Amino acid sequence: MAKTDKQKAKKWKSRAKALQAQLDALSAPAAPAPKKKVVIVSPLAPKDGFPLLPAIDGVDFATAQAGVRYAGRTDVMLARLAPGSVVAGTFTRSATRSAAVLDCQAKIGLNDASQGAAILVNSGNSNAFTGARGWESVNALTAAVAARLGIPANRVFTSSTGVIGEPLPHERIESALDGLVAGLKADGITDAARAIMTTDTYPKGAMAEVQINGQTARIVGIAKGSGMIAPDMATMLVYIFTDVAISRAALQSIVSRMTDRSFNAITVDSDTSTSDTLLVAATGKGPALTNMRTAEAKAFERAMGDVMMNLAHQVVRDGEGATKFVGITVTGAANDADAKRCALSIANSPLVKTALAGEDPNWGRIVAAVGKSGAEADRDRLSITFGAITVATNGMVDPSYREADGAAYMKNAELEIGVDLGLGKGKAKVWTCDLTHRYIDINADYRS
Amino acid sequence: MAKTDKQKAKKWKSRAKALQAQLDALSAPAAPAPKKKVVIVSPLAPKDGFPLLPAIDGVDFATAQAGVRYAGRTDVMLARLAPGSVVAGTFTRSATRSAAVLDCQAKIGLNDASQGAAILVNSGNSNAFTGARGWESVNALTAAVAARLGIPANRVFTSSTGVIGEPLPHERIESALDGLVAGLKADGITDAARAIMTTDTYPKGAMAEVQINGQTARIVGIAKGSGMIAPDMATMLVYIFTDVAISRAALQSIVSRMTDRSFNAITVDSDTSTSDTLLVAATGKGPALTNMRTAEAKAFERAMGDVMMNLAHQVVRDGEGATKFVGITVTGAANDADAKRCALSIANSPLVKTALAGEDPNWGRIVAAVGKSGAEADRDRLSITFGAITVATNGMVDPSYREADGAAYMKNAELEIGVDLGLGKGKAKVWTCDLTHRYIDINADYRS
Repeated sequence: MAKTDKQKAKKWKSRAKALQAQLDALSAPAAPAPKKKVVIVSPLAPKDGFPLLPAIDGVDFATAQAGVRYAGRTDVMLARLAPGSVVAGTFTRSATRSAAVLDCQAKIGLNDASQGAAILVNSGNSNAFTGARGWESVNALTAAVAARLGIPANRVFTSSTGVIGEPLPHERIESALDGLVAGLKADGITDAARAIMTTDTYPKGAMAEVQINGQTARIVGIAKGSGMIAPDMATMLVYIFTDVAISRAALQSIVSRMTDRSFNAITVDSDTSTSDTLLVAATGKGPALTNMRTAEAKAFERAMGDVMMNLAHQVVRDGEGATKFVGITVTGAANDADAKRCALSIANSPLVKTALAGEDPNWGRIVAAVGKSGAEADRDRLSITFGAITVATNGMVDPSYREADGAAYMKNAELEIGVDLGLGKGKAKVWTCDLTHRYIDINADYRS
Repeated sequence: MAKTDKQKAKKWKSRAKALQAQLDALSAPAAPAPKKKVVIVSPLAPKDGFPLLPAIDGVDFATAQAGVRYAGRTDVMLARLAPGSVVAGTFTRSATRSAAVLDCQAKIGLNDASQGAAILVNSGNSNAFTGARGWESVNALTAAVAARLGIPANRVFTSSTGVIGEPLPHERIESALDGLVAGLKADGITDAARAIMTTDTYPKGAMAEVQINGQTARIVGIAKGSGMIAPDMATMLVYIFTDVAISRAALQSIVSRMTDRSFNAITVDSDTSTSDTLLVAATGKGPALTNMRTAEAKAFERAMGDVMMNLAHQVVRDGEGATKFVGITVTGAANDADAKRCALSIANSPLVKTALAGEDPNWGRIVAAVGKSGAEADRDRLSITFGAITVATNGMVDPSYREADGAAYMKNAELEIGVDLGLGKGKAKVWTCDLTHRYIDINADYRS
């Protein structure tokens, strides 16, 4: 009996110490920051964890610990795409984008699927704002991968994510390449999702299946990102793989359309990174899509959209310091572009985002964000809803609205805000998160 | 001994539970905030306090406690302008601006100086987003002031600042009008500066004198504002008075030019208010300016610009939670508009502003903000300076730059960041503050 109590005492003491350590870490002053970061998984992370992703015929993955910056974790992933694969993509519009992004953009339009392709991604260093040395690194890495896989260098796509302004020690990645090539395997995508993380609090994956001509086509994707730019200049990277046989042009068209509704409709802090990259590869090993007007092609597009939207939402759910996942729908705008401008203005407003953090149903700040958006708006036609609650109609607080209802609704972790401009048929939906003390903690930390 | 272990187990269990409760409380979304606010004067407030402002011949002021929302402080100010006064102004471009702003805009172009004018301002309620009732309040107040001063209602300008979406109890202000009119006096501007404050931590005033034809012309101004929109939807209001005799058109032209360089070149949080108003009145009792090409007219314009810039800087210095006052100069842009776009993108970037709060010389975030601004930029021509320190040249960290120098510089309360785009002759300067925990405290507080 005494022994049991002793064990209990030991157990509770150890538990108390662990909790104390967590508390200390949380309440420690922001600067000068400890080098070790307390990794707390976002409260908005998917409940089921990382999904079980099926292998895609024609894609193999490998990961390695190259020691680019992080110790004790993988930081490089290589994906090999079988001959016949086409690659589509969208990229950051930043005028200061990195050499890797510029290199991908130059290659993405080339349509030579015959010899296969490869994607090499490292975390820990973004190789951004590194001048001519940035290009040297990209050229060295693409040539090294090309030589080992027996494909042209212009079929090798690279991404780098991490600290900005420091030369990429690409020789460390080159040293890891033989091991990477030897380790390529069909079921390595979960490891790949982990290797590309920087300040993410969880790896991000999604999948969809769609029936085409009686065959099952598969789409799997992974992403990283938790702020447009995080403490070490992390950025958003997304890689999606499918086995359908499709032309590059058709794939690009689908990807571009779906990007607008997914990755271009999310925001954490309005800061656009210099490295954002989305690559979508189709290996052609599965069912074929030749006519893009068929119901099956539409189903594929929807499935691709679902995977992209799922990953985009996961990025917002991992938004730095986020405690609320918020959908903002604008309807009744003069046109769709105005609706999106208005929705993003609300989603990026620091005052709206701090009100969300404080669970304050402060609809006045939404009105102000509409007003500053540049979208056509008429104050006296504006309506606002929080979930099913009508807050304001025709430019005034609704007679039925009770502040207590709005305040109660704001306690939810997932919120839906609706704004109707009462002008036309334009509509758009975007997703954002709240702006909390933890965002400041993360981003006011001194980097080194 | 057995008992001791049992006691230990109990102690540690209870300790662990208490710690768990603390942790839960920390990770729980912010609870309804305490109602009392700690008023701390901004550390960036002018060292000398409120300046001694000379009386302006032809302007009288009065203040009153109308109890619009606040108790125990003045919340209404009335300024009476002598016959012969002209009034110029600039206003928020928000599409959801308030009835008071729309009313001022409709009247500002009228050029009937013969009967004098008046400005009535209340704090505590912005009368914004109040539909038809908003107009009723404006009409009631302008008519009531007009009747008491014997001037037309279209010569009465009003501003309201404070909580949004609640009807303005204008009858409380009307009840205070007789007392206000009776209390009008030439030296009441300091009291007026206090009456218009909402979340400001100090009243804001500025003055300048200029010699015209051997006579001294005077310019005095007051302002309020500490966020584009603050917890109670405070906004920026500015009232400037001068005794020069000048045409309305010439005054408006000067005011518009100087607004671009001062009030339109500052930002606290990128959120534009629905009530921003700047009114400039010239009473005509002092020296006359008829030819705007003379050196004296230029001197007057410079003096007016100085007063406006001084007040604009005071608004940034009172930015919610600000601990750093930061000037951002962009040179070498393709044109001035691009330079300003770029400077404001840096000044509004949450990641730049959190880095400033953390005293982190994180120039990578400046590069990213340039990249997302939409201004023409070439990554490899970009140069960055912190004060006299060259940080980056030609798109790379400068060989002479030492991180320790940058970190030491960031400890200053006043910072100068320079960005040269290396493209053309466009230039612009804007001012901003940092983004701190206190901004979140202030704005995530529940309003009521």
